[in-house]
Amino acid sequence: MEYPSRLIEEAVNQIAKLPGIGKKTALRLVLHLIKGKEIQTYALTDSLNNLRANIKFCSRCHTICDGDTCSICASHRRDRGMICVVEDVKDVMAIENTAQYTGLYHVLGGIISPVSGIGPADLKIESLVQRLSPGQGSEPVREVILALSPTMEGDTTAFYINRRIKDLDLRISVIARGVPVGGDLEYADEITLGRSITGRTLFN
Amino acid sequence: MEYPSRLIEEAVNQIAKLPGIGKKTALRLVLHLIKGKEIQTYALTDSLNNLRANIKFCSRCHTICDGDTCSICASHRRDRGMICVVEDVKDVMAIENTAQYTGLYHVLGGIISPVSGIGPADLKIESLVQRLSPGQGSEPVREVILALSPTMEGDTTAFYINRRIKDLDLRISVIARGVPVGGDLEYADEITLGRSITGRTLFN
Repeated sequence: MEYPSRLIEEAVNQIAKLPGIGKKTALRLVLHLIKGKEIQTYALTDSLNNLRANIKFCSRCHTICDGDTCSICASHRRDRGMICVVEDVKDVMAIENTAQYTGLYHVLGGIISPVSGIGPADLKIESLVQRLSPGQGSEPVREVILALSPTMEGDTTAFYINRRIKDLDLRISVIARGVPVGGDLEYADEITLGRSITGRTLFN
Repeated sequence: MEYPSRLIEEAVNQIAKLPGIGKKTALRLVLHLIKGKEIQTYALTDSLNNLRANIKFCSRCHTICDGDTCSICASHRRDRGMICVVEDVKDVMAIENTAQYTGLYHVLGGIISPVSGIGPADLKIESLVQRLSPGQGSEPVREVILALSPTMEGDTTAFYINRRIKDLDLRISVIARGVPVGGDLEYADEITLGRSITGRTLFN
């Protein structure tokens, strides 16, 4: 498509680099910004620049935070005996929203994916092992919960982490797999349904 | 939703002000920017700041352009006897893409919409009348094509413009309404189908 202005073309190309946004949507957003007040565009760009320049990661669990230690690691009301291993900060937010977990987290920053060229060294696995191993900087952890996506990559990552920490004196668990609550049994795929039968729990 | 960082919350709120982007999508975009290189974020924000600070509108047709006059108004290969009146620059781009029109444009910058509080004075209607009226700054126009959306607001705007310029010595036309090319007759709504019958043209 030919754009009436070089400035528009550049802005559209930049916005279209974002995931899930094509050139047509990008153009709609650009024209929206041109139509609106200047201050709106500057507020947007300032917040993004500010974010990119000042964002920090927790020195213990590697989640995104404003300071050196995140509010969860800093809280005295969290159970320091449990660490939930997740892929990224979105998972932390999702689990926090359930209000069912009171322990700490460890954010890997991705999962092992040979297709995308991401190996164990690219993730915060060494730092997890260090948090759990006896010695300096170790934490009094009883249980590690592997809360990774139920995919090939997630399983590979869980398998690798399990191998790295299985000799330590702690419980290693994974989140339950089965039919989603509110889902129709009829529409569950056979692997999920099979797992929900082999992984059945006592009715109580 | 609670965000792990004030910076993230601010960026999400700013992005979610854009049309068609909710908080969940905004968070996904923000996390994408954090994961990527810093330079990517700065390239995006620079292009938007640059756009907002330097964007210009053509002094004749009011479309978006880089200089004082747009490339269409400046071109010597365009038919200066025709002016196509459209709502905004997206319509200019869409009509240019058809490669069926060789005249000039006039971008109103919106359409009359009492619901949104947009009246004739908010649009570039006065400047259109001036382009067409005999006297200083007038152009040798034979025909004005009203290419506005086939909606209540578009019809109102076309009606208003027609009233303002009908006494001038020129042809006023509107783009054809009918069944879309490639569309199934069965699925055309009755108003469109009705218009396609009353507005039928000679075969060949």
